[in-house]
Amino acid sequence: MNCKSPMAVTFSFAGFAQRGGRTDHHADGWGIGFFENRGVRLFVDPAPACDSPVAELIARYPIKSTNVISHIRKATCGAVMTENCHPFVRELWGRYWVFAHNGDLRDCAPRLHRQFHPVGATDSERAFCWLMQELSKAHADMPAVDELTRTLSELVPQIARFGVFNMLLSNGEALWAHGSTKLCYTVRQHPFSVAQLADEDLSVDFALLNTPQERVAVVATTPLTTNETWTAIASGQLLVFIDGALALAHAAAPSQ
Amino acid sequence: MNCKSPMAVTFSFAGFAQRGGRTDHHADGWGIGFFENRGVRLFVDPAPACDSPVAELIARYPIKSTNVISHIRKATCGAVMTENCHPFVRELWGRYWVFAHNGDLRDCAPRLHRQFHPVGATDSERAFCWLMQELSKAHADMPAVDELTRTLSELVPQIARFGVFNMLLSNGEALWAHGSTKLCYTVRQHPFSVAQLADEDLSVDFALLNTPQERVAVVATTPLTTNETWTAIASGQLLVFIDGALALAHAAAPSQ
Repeated sequence: MNCKSPMAVTFSFAGFAQRGGRTDHHADGWGIGFFENRGVRLFVDPAPACDSPVAELIARYPIKSTNVISHIRKATCGAVMTENCHPFVRELWGRYWVFAHNGDLRDCAPRLHRQFHPVGATDSERAFCWLMQELSKAHADMPAVDELTRTLSELVPQIARFGVFNMLLSNGEALWAHGSTKLCYTVRQHPFSVAQLADEDLSVDFALLNTPQERVAVVATTPLTTNETWTAIASGQLLVFIDGALALAHAAAPSQ
Repeated sequence: MNCKSPMAVTFSFAGFAQRGGRTDHHADGWGIGFFENRGVRLFVDPAPACDSPVAELIARYPIKSTNVISHIRKATCGAVMTENCHPFVRELWGRYWVFAHNGDLRDCAPRLHRQFHPVGATDSERAFCWLMQELSKAHADMPAVDELTRTLSELVPQIARFGVFNMLLSNGEALWAHGSTKLCYTVRQHPFSVAQLADEDLSVDFALLNTPQERVAVVATTPLTTNETWTAIASGQLLVFIDGALALAHAAAPSQ
């Protein structure tokens, strides 16, 4: 989720968490990272999201954030343990970076010769460390979002050619989304309407909750609601969201 | 808290959290980091610990851990914001490091010329980044605990001379504690007895909860219980706890 002004994610999360073992088979832990200004609140839990006390807290406790990344895991690589739960966080240029990945990268063993090393055993964290390493080599200090998008659009295909790389990345300023097999997004803005969750019998009237100035982009592997327009992100496409809207579309360079 | 086998911290935390605005004046946010194997669960909250929904969850939900670091903040440097809440986490050598600091460092601006940079505005996070930087320069890969203790006993005084530096640091394997003005510890081991919290009308019989094999060291600025033996850590002393016991005592080099 990427928003213009800090918003709570409680509604979308209520449906999303059901996919962690109830309406979907992703039951091998979960996690959620909220940016609050430059800070991050990260909650990870190796228990299935659908019966995690931490998930229950998140669904009840409105943490207002401009950028949120959440993930429910189906273990393909790495045991069901805290250190293998997404999202992963690293610091670069005095800012936190939050990353989550859906997919499977086979034989992806990029050389990690600088300061970022995986703590757990997932292909995802390894790919994230490589992205951070290459970003740190490409820029001496935090560049503008456009510049970062250009660099990422060169780096991401080098990972994506190893398999399925649906991924979300945020530095608290922007949200990058790379589509590989399935990823879609919707933008909620004025005039707001009623949204009906796909995974739970729950609907909400955003017109009652939001002011006309608010705007939010929600990205997910499959649509979270049944009555909003969700746009598929094409395979190989890297999108960037700022202030709750799509900012730039980069068709990534073809795989080599 | 440093334990021989994973233990829940719910009892000690119940008393500790009261100091975040109720029995003490540390009401500017709080945080707690739990190691689970190599993974870390970090909870930070800019709300006072005594009425934080997250603190309430921690007090109810037993997360079993071998190393736990918690902190309640009285802001002396840096606004009351998520990014300024302790503990802070960084990755080095493929392991997470968790750090918390009680005290005040004046004019402490060590040069950060490598990969660790503060995200928030506290003197504490800056000192932590410097410690991580110097550790990464001193060793190519994760050394043994003894070796780390030797390096830390050279580094810590270089920070401590700028002010008050009561600090806790863990890599999930050991817990380092440096005393400056106030820090004390107790070791709970067989035969276990009844402990009475200092900050809440609550007692627990550890003999009923623990097996004779268990052992836990608890370090705090002031004793958490009224009927256990708490040993003060002398000013300038760096202690290291492994498997719930005191491992080595290093008298740090005198301040220059």
